[in-house]
Amino acid sequence: MKKNRILVFFFSLILTGPIMADQTDSVMIRQIYHFELSEGRCYQDLEDLCLNIGQRLSGSKAADLAVEWAKEKMTSYGIDKVYLQEVWVPYWERGKEEKCRLVAPSKYKGRNLQVLALGNSVGTGEKGVQGKIIEIQDLRELESMGQALQNKILFINKKMDPTLVNTGQAYSNVDSIRYRGPAEAARYGATGVIVRSLSNGINPFPHTGSTGYVEGIPKIPAIAVSTADAEFLHDLLKEEKDVEIYFETFCQNHEDKLSYNVIGEIRGSLHPEEYIMVGGHLDSWDVGQGAHDDGTGCVQAIEALRILKSLGYQPKRTLRAVMFMNEENGLHGGKTYAEQARLKSEKHIAAIESDAGGFTPRGFGLDGTDEAFNRFSGWSTFFKPYLADRFTKGGSGADISPLRDQGVQLIGFRPDNQRYFLYHHTHEDTFDKVNQRELELGAAAMSSLIYFIDRHGW
Amino acid sequence: MKKNRILVFFFSLILTGPIMADQTDSVMIRQIYHFELSEGRCYQDLEDLCLNIGQRLSGSKAADLAVEWAKEKMTSYGIDKVYLQEVWVPYWERGKEEKCRLVAPSKYKGRNLQVLALGNSVGTGEKGVQGKIIEIQDLRELESMGQALQNKILFINKKMDPTLVNTGQAYSNVDSIRYRGPAEAARYGATGVIVRSLSNGINPFPHTGSTGYVEGIPKIPAIAVSTADAEFLHDLLKEEKDVEIYFETFCQNHEDKLSYNVIGEIRGSLHPEEYIMVGGHLDSWDVGQGAHDDGTGCVQAIEALRILKSLGYQPKRTLRAVMFMNEENGLHGGKTYAEQARLKSEKHIAAIESDAGGFTPRGFGLDGTDEAFNRFSGWSTFFKPYLADRFTKGGSGADISPLRDQGVQLIGFRPDNQRYFLYHHTHEDTFDKVNQRELELGAAAMSSLIYFIDRHGW
Repeated sequence: MKKNRILVFFFSLILTGPIMADQTDSVMIRQIYHFELSEGRCYQDLEDLCLNIGQRLSGSKAADLAVEWAKEKMTSYGIDKVYLQEVWVPYWERGKEEKCRLVAPSKYKGRNLQVLALGNSVGTGEKGVQGKIIEIQDLRELESMGQALQNKILFINKKMDPTLVNTGQAYSNVDSIRYRGPAEAARYGATGVIVRSLSNGINPFPHTGSTGYVEGIPKIPAIAVSTADAEFLHDLLKEEKDVEIYFETFCQNHEDKLSYNVIGEIRGSLHPEEYIMVGGHLDSWDVGQGAHDDGTGCVQAIEALRILKSLGYQPKRTLRAVMFMNEENGLHGGKTYAEQARLKSEKHIAAIESDAGGFTPRGFGLDGTDEAFNRFSGWSTFFKPYLADRFTKGGSGADISPLRDQGVQLIGFRPDNQRYFLYHHTHEDTFDKVNQRELELGAAAMSSLIYFIDRHGW
Repeated sequence: MKKNRILVFFFSLILTGPIMADQTDSVMIRQIYHFELSEGRCYQDLEDLCLNIGQRLSGSKAADLAVEWAKEKMTSYGIDKVYLQEVWVPYWERGKEEKCRLVAPSKYKGRNLQVLALGNSVGTGEKGVQGKIIEIQDLRELESMGQALQNKILFINKKMDPTLVNTGQAYSNVDSIRYRGPAEAARYGATGVIVRSLSNGINPFPHTGSTGYVEGIPKIPAIAVSTADAEFLHDLLKEEKDVEIYFETFCQNHEDKLSYNVIGEIRGSLHPEEYIMVGGHLDSWDVGQGAHDDGTGCVQAIEALRILKSLGYQPKRTLRAVMFMNEENGLHGGKTYAEQARLKSEKHIAAIESDAGGFTPRGFGLDGTDEAFNRFSGWSTFFKPYLADRFTKGGSGADISPLRDQGVQLIGFRPDNQRYFLYHHTHEDTFDKVNQRELELGAAAMSSLIYFIDRHGW
């Protein structure tokens, strides 16, 4: 520690012009990576969060524990000021495990399908829902359905496009089937909805995620089926006209509850009124352990500040780490944070989010002004030796998106995303799927970017 | 398929100048990726190789099966000409499972350590070897040892540098401790050697790998200990002066055996006498399933040719996929291949190797002329949309390295390597550690590069 502080001090003394500035930047980024790869703590922090608290959906007791955990963790690292920000969150509970099985044709009667109820969905209760299945590939097919869906169960079997190298793009292209599908199906008289899980390839893991109902249209129960069982159903429906299914879910929507965003700050020395924010979301779905989604983002955000503090770096602006609550089913943490920032006239010059998994870094995406992008992309050369120099336009993060209309430069950490949609929103999203070095490299990249923004501004 | 062929034909017709050439290249690379990500076979091929044949050290029965497998696989994909090339290989056998335990201090007596005998090492047999341990961090420390090592067991505890982002570089910096350490220790009278496993971080998996003896110096038994147990030993040696250990290994070196490189060719239409080679090594260590090392390289090499054939691409040069035998403990496959190429005056204009794991692609490294590098790096822009555009100098592959003095441009496929040294040479190197999309993206990148070399030359 001590040696590092002296080095930083030394290099801040010899900073006398643009050439030296470049050298200072190179030295600083090298120190950040060196520190993190030899003295990183974020992997142990993630282990603690995932194994000792685990899944933590908004409103749950585990979410409360996670709030305490984040506060204590940041305090223990000597972050100047750590506090909670009140957020009212929806409280949805999955209840007893969902079940889904075929009723007809007779040769498959009783065959179980791997499913998860969609978040926010209403439950069927013990009576379940039963009906013939109609399959569509796209919501647009609904328009010509007429009465055909009446009392049926709609199976929306839209695939993520495997040919897109960017799996996040493939996901964005189809996630409306999950969010809008059930409400659309209800308009046409369906009694239940099964959506194909949003995942790459064929695997046995059902993926949950939010759905949204529309005022004045019946709320019908909705589940996601694994891609393997979606393929099975699809093949079956080609052979058999009358396929009938039964499913039961026990989800319930309760009253909203009080929860919190957790905020930690290192006060700026020159412009304390300007904020550079970095964050992830603390809540997770109620399956798995919320490891890649988004425990990794939280521990990286904390680590990004811890690194700078450990190296003795004195920021000009105030650096703020935010663990958002309720990204998964409401975004109330992000909305509240932006609202409070507006009310308090906090000037955010940048907000960085890590919510794409704790995989090996590729770079960052900036959703902001051209001027900021020019500066931003100029820094990428410093990230080249660390293989994190893909600085592109667009793609920030959900929690920080409500800050957009305050003119904040929004930045998304962009890791490699080939594996993300195997784990996302499933029982598989567990600590053992995270690689220590990949996680640490992400924290170091985020810390480095904060340094560049703080030192050079836009 | 048909549609693809027509498209290729169409674009070859409209190829009239440099601008159109660029468009043809863009279209071709898009087709290659599209085909592989929707109709790829290499993941299934790897599953077959890993689960039905598994580990396949040179000289073993499994290696013979793998030779047959590779021949049949390429034949089944309609590669024009598939044949075997004779290679004499060493035949080393691990024998009964090795054991290692502490003898002193008394409080740890009987504690087992996780170890694997080093490849090529002699065995201790039932009598085992027992002695006090002396720890060093680096082979250079031996010079000042004098008689201190006499009848002792040397523990070489050199770490891979965690602060290097390129883990391959960290490995290369220290792998001489495994290859040269036992012979060096024997010079100073040691009776056995324990090397720290070459792995990132602290984990319980011992990593095997080759060691080499020196003529005229006693061959002493050598094992690798897991990094977790290396840390334990290190801490113990700080507390206790006299730490005594016992280990037993049952390895044997047998007579050389006849084995084979497996070669498949698609004949060139314009310059059939010029070869573009792509390969991996078919042998593996005798632990795990040889998945990332180097089953992935083999199935990617086969796939790289299958893609071009499936798209109806007519190469100008002869494309050759080579599955090398005996990379791990002798490199006789690579040496024989180069020798035969020289004897037959085969003109190789490029050799590409994938032997760094089946992880998400970053790009390629070229070990060749400046002229070739200029051409090569100019192509990288076409690989940018596929996130595989890091085209650098250096770093090809062991099997193709004997071709260097024939003036061949040597190219190494460079995937992300953060996870590689968790699995490399361990029981953990199994099929389930490979991600389908990452593997396929690598095959597509290799296929694309072959296309560029074939079409444009150097």
